[in-house]
Amino acid sequence: MGPGPSAVHRRVYEALSKRLVGHLDPEFIRIMNETQAMLRHVFRTENRLTFSVSGTGSAGMEACLVNCIEPGDEALVCVQGVFGTRMCDIVERIGGRLHRIDRPWGQVFEPQEIADALKKHPGVRTVAIVNAETSTGAHQPVEEIGKLCRETGRLIIVDAVTSLGGAPLEVDRWGIDVCYSGTQKCLSCPPGLAPVTFGERAIERLRSRKSKPASWYLDFGLIESYWTEGKRAYHHTAPISMNYALYQALALVIEEGLENRQARHRLHGRALADGLEALGFEPFAQEGHRLPMLLSFTVPAGVVDAEVRRLLLEEYGIEIGGGLGPLAGKVWRIGLMGESSRRENVVLFLAALESILFAQGVTKEIGAGLEAAARVYAGPATS
Amino acid sequence: MGPGPSAVHRRVYEALSKRLVGHLDPEFIRIMNETQAMLRHVFRTENRLTFSVSGTGSAGMEACLVNCIEPGDEALVCVQGVFGTRMCDIVERIGGRLHRIDRPWGQVFEPQEIADALKKHPGVRTVAIVNAETSTGAHQPVEEIGKLCRETGRLIIVDAVTSLGGAPLEVDRWGIDVCYSGTQKCLSCPPGLAPVTFGERAIERLRSRKSKPASWYLDFGLIESYWTEGKRAYHHTAPISMNYALYQALALVIEEGLENRQARHRLHGRALADGLEALGFEPFAQEGHRLPMLLSFTVPAGVVDAEVRRLLLEEYGIEIGGGLGPLAGKVWRIGLMGESSRRENVVLFLAALESILFAQGVTKEIGAGLEAAARVYAGPATS
Repeated sequence: MGPGPSAVHRRVYEALSKRLVGHLDPEFIRIMNETQAMLRHVFRTENRLTFSVSGTGSAGMEACLVNCIEPGDEALVCVQGVFGTRMCDIVERIGGRLHRIDRPWGQVFEPQEIADALKKHPGVRTVAIVNAETSTGAHQPVEEIGKLCRETGRLIIVDAVTSLGGAPLEVDRWGIDVCYSGTQKCLSCPPGLAPVTFGERAIERLRSRKSKPASWYLDFGLIESYWTEGKRAYHHTAPISMNYALYQALALVIEEGLENRQARHRLHGRALADGLEALGFEPFAQEGHRLPMLLSFTVPAGVVDAEVRRLLLEEYGIEIGGGLGPLAGKVWRIGLMGESSRRENVVLFLAALESILFAQGVTKEIGAGLEAAARVYAGPATS
Repeated sequence: MGPGPSAVHRRVYEALSKRLVGHLDPEFIRIMNETQAMLRHVFRTENRLTFSVSGTGSAGMEACLVNCIEPGDEALVCVQGVFGTRMCDIVERIGGRLHRIDRPWGQVFEPQEIADALKKHPGVRTVAIVNAETSTGAHQPVEEIGKLCRETGRLIIVDAVTSLGGAPLEVDRWGIDVCYSGTQKCLSCPPGLAPVTFGERAIERLRSRKSKPASWYLDFGLIESYWTEGKRAYHHTAPISMNYALYQALALVIEEGLENRQARHRLHGRALADGLEALGFEPFAQEGHRLPMLLSFTVPAGVVDAEVRRLLLEEYGIEIGGGLGPLAGKVWRIGLMGESSRRENVVLFLAALESILFAQGVTKEIGAGLEAAARVYAGPATS
C-alpha cells in the first residue's frame, strides 16, 4: 500500500516466467501488436505510435521531453510536486528554455494560470504537467489545459504515471498530444516499462527537428520503426519478459473494464479517506482534487511518523509511503492502486492503524475509522 | 541460438515470478547488496560503483558515454561493427567531439593503431571500444589498450555486452575504467538490465563535470545514491522483478565458476566452428580473434541465406541471426551463450543444417560437420 509498486496478479507473474522467444520472433511481434492495441484502449486514443519505452516511468518522462524539446525551445513546466520538479531538471539538461510556474504542493493549477503564463511567454512550444502527483496525492485536471494548448498550437505532455487505468484519462478527447505512464501503479504490473502515446502533432514535431534528440536509446524516430507493424526493424533488444507481463496486465484491465476499474478505485479510495478522516487525520491535497489511488494525509500531532510506519510494516506487513522532500515526516501516502485497491486492504489498514494508535494511547477506542469505511461500503457506489 | 537473448535457467524464471516487495524494502536492499557483490566478482573488479542500469544493454552504453563525456569533450571511438557505430552516434548526440577510427568489419584493432590515433588527437579524454562485436563475431583484445589509456591519462570505456561471463574480462587488472554489459547474453537472464562498473577515475570525471549529463534517468551522480550501501536514496523505481532474475542468474554463474563457464563457452564454440568449417563454411571474423559465444560465418555460394534460416526455424525450432547492415544476406551469426552453450545445441544445429543442405542437394553426404565436432568433444578440453 505504498505509492507503487502495487500488488501483481498471479497471471502477470506467470507471464513473467513464460519461456523467451527472440525480440524479432513472429510470436513476440504478435504480442507487441496486441499490446499496442490494448494500450490504445487504456489511453483512450487512436494514436498509432503507442507503445512501451524500455525503462521505468521516469524513462518515459525523459523520453517524451527529449523527443519534443530541442535545445533553445521554450517549454512551460507546471510544478506542484516532485515529478513536476523532475521535469524542469530534464528540460534544462536537454538545453530547453525553461519557464516554470509553481503551485504549493498538494494544490492544483487552474486553466487560467496556464493561459496567463502562455500570454507572458508567447514563445512556449511545449507545456508539461503532471495529472496525478504521486508526491502529494493531488489530482490535476488536464482537460481544459489540453484544449487550451490545442487551440494555441502548443504541444502538451501529460504525466499519467499514477492515474492510467485508475482514473478517467481521455487522451484523444482532451487533446493530449503526448502522455506517458508506468506499469507499476494502476496497471499492477512490475516496474520496468513506460507506456507512452505520441500523437500526430508530436510526430510532426519529431520530423521537423533540426537536431537529433540527445538520447539514442529513447529516440522515438528510431524506436518508431521497431514498434510499427510491418517494419519491426531492430533498434535495441526489448525487455521481453516485461512485455509479456504488461500484455497480461493489460488483458486483466480490459477484462475488468476501464470504467469498472475506475469505479473500484473511487469506491475504495473514498472508504479509506472517510475512515482516516473519522480518526482525525486531515487530507493533505486540495479539496475536490484528491486522487483515489494515492491518498495523502497530514500526520497529526501526537502521531510519530516513522514509528507508526515501522509498526505497520513489522507487525502487520503493511507498507505505506512517507513524504518526499519538504513533506518528509509530515504526510503519509497510501496507495490503493490496481490489484491493491481492495476492500480487505482498506479494512486491514484501518484496523491496524486503529490498533497501533490505541496501544500508544493516542486514541481511547477502536472502531471509528472502520465504521466510516463500512458506511461507504453500505451506501450506493460512489459516482 | 541467435545473437541473444540466450536460453534462461528454470531458477531465473522462478525468480522473475517471485512476489514483489517495494524498491526501498529491506529485503530488496539485501538483494541489491548481494547483486552488486556478485557483479563485482563477474567483472573482476573492486569498483564500489558496480550495479545494473534500469534498461537494456544499449541503455548501458548510453549511460556510460553520457556520464563520461561532456559537450565539447574529445572522444576516440574505435569502430569495427554496428555497436561501435552506435557509440559514435551517441557521442555526437551528447555534443562530444568525435574522433573515429575504423577497421573493416570482422577485423580487430592493434594497440598501435589506438596509440597512433591518440598521438594525432592529443586532446582525447575518452576512448571507447567494443570487446565483443555482436555484429561481426570479432573478439577485440582490450588489455593493451586499457594499459595504454591508463598510462596516457585517458578514460577507457569497454563494451562487454556479449563477452561478460563467457570470455575472460579483467576490469581491474586490464585498467578498464568503465565497462557495461547486458543480461541476455552469457549471463542468461532475460533482457532488461545493463550491468555496469564505474571505476574511481571515472567517478572523479563525473565529480569534475562542468555540466549535468544530458540524461536525468541515466545520471550516475544521482543513481549512485540509490546503489550505495547505507544511502539507498530514491531515484527511480527499479525494475524489481528483473533484479530478482539477475540475482539468480549471477548466483548460477558463480556456482558454475567463472573459469569453468569460460571453458565451456570455448569448448562448444570450438566444436561448432570446426563442424561448420568441415562443411565448407568460412569463418567471417579475423583468425585468432573469434568469439566462442557468437560465431560468424560467411554464407557460401549455393546456400540461400533466408531460406535455410527459415527451414532451421520452422522445421527444427532453431533461431540463428542473419547479418546486420552491410552484412545482411552475407553472414550468419550463431549464438552459444550462457545456458545455450551446450553440446546438444551444437549437435542439433549441425545435424539440422547438414540435413537441410543434403535435402537441397548442396551436399551429397551427411556427417562431416558432426564428425568434426565429435573430434573436439573427444579430445582434451581446449585451453
